[in-house]
Amino acid sequence: MKIVCNRQELLESLNGVSRAVSTKSSIPAIEGILLKCSNDTVILTAYDLEIGIVTSFVADVKEPGEIVLNSRLLIDMIRKMSSETVTIDADSELKAQITGGITKFSFVGIPASDFPEMPIPDAENTLTLKASVLKEMIGKTIFAVSTSDQKPVHTGTKFIMNNDSLTMVSVDGYRLAVCTQKVDFSNDNKSFIVPAKTLSEVTKLMGEGEEDVNIGIARRYGVFQLNNYTVITRLLEGDFLDYKKSIPEGFKTRVKIGVRELFDAVERASLIINDRFKSPIKFVFEDNRTVVTCATALGNAYDEIICDTEGDAVEMGFNNRYVLDALRNCGCDEVYLEIGGPISPLKMVPVQGNDFLFLLLPVRIKTAD
Amino acid sequence: MKIVCNRQELLESLNGVSRAVSTKSSIPAIEGILLKCSNDTVILTAYDLEIGIVTSFVADVKEPGEIVLNSRLLIDMIRKMSSETVTIDADSELKAQITGGITKFSFVGIPASDFPEMPIPDAENTLTLKASVLKEMIGKTIFAVSTSDQKPVHTGTKFIMNNDSLTMVSVDGYRLAVCTQKVDFSNDNKSFIVPAKTLSEVTKLMGEGEEDVNIGIARRYGVFQLNNYTVITRLLEGDFLDYKKSIPEGFKTRVKIGVRELFDAVERASLIINDRFKSPIKFVFEDNRTVVTCATALGNAYDEIICDTEGDAVEMGFNNRYVLDALRNCGCDEVYLEIGGPISPLKMVPVQGNDFLFLLLPVRIKTAD
Repeated sequence: MKIVCNRQELLESLNGVSRAVSTKSSIPAIEGILLKCSNDTVILTAYDLEIGIVTSFVADVKEPGEIVLNSRLLIDMIRKMSSETVTIDADSELKAQITGGITKFSFVGIPASDFPEMPIPDAENTLTLKASVLKEMIGKTIFAVSTSDQKPVHTGTKFIMNNDSLTMVSVDGYRLAVCTQKVDFSNDNKSFIVPAKTLSEVTKLMGEGEEDVNIGIARRYGVFQLNNYTVITRLLEGDFLDYKKSIPEGFKTRVKIGVRELFDAVERASLIINDRFKSPIKFVFEDNRTVVTCATALGNAYDEIICDTEGDAVEMGFNNRYVLDALRNCGCDEVYLEIGGPISPLKMVPVQGNDFLFLLLPVRIKTAD
Repeated sequence: MKIVCNRQELLESLNGVSRAVSTKSSIPAIEGILLKCSNDTVILTAYDLEIGIVTSFVADVKEPGEIVLNSRLLIDMIRKMSSETVTIDADSELKAQITGGITKFSFVGIPASDFPEMPIPDAENTLTLKASVLKEMIGKTIFAVSTSDQKPVHTGTKFIMNNDSLTMVSVDGYRLAVCTQKVDFSNDNKSFIVPAKTLSEVTKLMGEGEEDVNIGIARRYGVFQLNNYTVITRLLEGDFLDYKKSIPEGFKTRVKIGVRELFDAVERASLIINDRFKSPIKFVFEDNRTVVTCATALGNAYDEIICDTEGDAVEMGFNNRYVLDALRNCGCDEVYLEIGGPISPLKMVPVQGNDFLFLLLPVRIKTAD
């Protein structure tokens, strides 16, 4: 196998697929990238058995062939190479020589036959949407994905295609994030659960957001096509929370509040929380102001925010990180907080539109100050 | 104690002195900053028993007094405060209230009497030099300071004042860095050893380099005055290497070589070195070129650099990190490498001027390739 190619192009493609390279494995092949060279095209594949990424670029293929090269080593070498043209030459004994100008590296590759077979699911193209839309929807839901192994199906985000809308839902037992957007699709209603890790890598592979993303679904696999990359992912299976049932109807208190102001106040109050000294943040929602307080062995914090409140005054406690996550990802300047009572979940929705809904479970607080 | 002051001014001063706050200590007072307030001035002191930093700023002192406040907590609070004016109010029970606009924090301080007594050495002002000059001299020597506890005196840099020049010397057993500059001073010849940690903090406290730095020396302490900060440091005592004796006279080979080219080649060759697979970088200095190679179980690297060589061809091995450190800190485009033979130390000096001299011990390499 021998190719001559542009250094920058090779490097970008390697960086892209390397997101699916396993960083710690006992199988050397999946710490590598598979190069398949033929017909002036190089196809790069990385696959860690959960997620696979494929891309290709045009190169001067002097001699077709395939080999697996260690990802970290290859990328570091190409990155540091001083010439703009790079030659990769692998002999039949798998000795690969990487040459750029006067610089030469050589190291031993891994036979392509050792690379795990990646499923190429026969997916129907179920859905096409703008990268910018998908990016925003992922941003508004991924933070609420469970990081615990207790319920593996909740380590992913559920995609629900229904009529002309796509809804994405994440839940970790303490909070719920739902995001809905209108999309065009001609297929049947369908739902599937994508691992959060895949969504996070897909986000990083998306460019400025102008391009389309195709999402294809096969029986146990999902295929994202974007930006000259194909991302193949295992889907999660199991009983996902019936999220609609968890969302309370109506409210007794509704607060219209500035996102930045509330975020800053909670962040300040969080200064007296640390790994050793923990306490919920206490909110008092009352006429035209929200009082934010926190008390730990380290000290006390007090803040007030001017806001619009309808309904009953109410006092509630929340985990500071969950409040900060929701406010950081809501993507708007003002939200409604809708509350059924001091121990009901708090519903956060935008003041304009209805593209997201976040639900936060309160923490029981001592009523005496 | 009660003061009203500008948030930004307070924050900058706190950040400056906080470099001398102990981060892990069983004594709460030295994790704090001492505030002494009187006559419209606040004096801030941090002292971890090795290095002390003092600064002051003008504030509206409503009620004089002193208290020690936890550094991390106070700085975080002041940083996040939304108003530009901050009030610090501590009562006789040491309860401190930090107020900015509507935001209020309260936490318990530590009595000033718990703060360790910092030596205020009666130092003569031995030496004054431009911050930019001191910064450059520190940069050219600090990288070669020993990080091992085996010979504590070598964890500092030796300052030698001799006639009208200042020489700074660091050594760690494998390499030596010497930097000399002309300076004006009227006192006697003198030498002292400053801990590298102090020099590193002094560098960070220096501004753009236009201001003067005063270095005063007492029996066991050094005092750096710069930029409204006073840094007091313990000096190191013990037998410092007689560095002049270690520098070989003359050479059999002299190479004039580009710093960037050599750095890049060594950095590339270093890609096949890791924690598990180590090997020296091999240099062959010969007529008009330097060949840089390295071989480990990971692979091989080969590079060539065009250069001017006088004298015998020679083959030597070096620890890659030591070569990179020297080239990164030499501050010039071209250096001379002066070599007495394959097992003599390599002397690196500037092509123009003579402000630095780096000495690197070679590593024995197998002569067969």
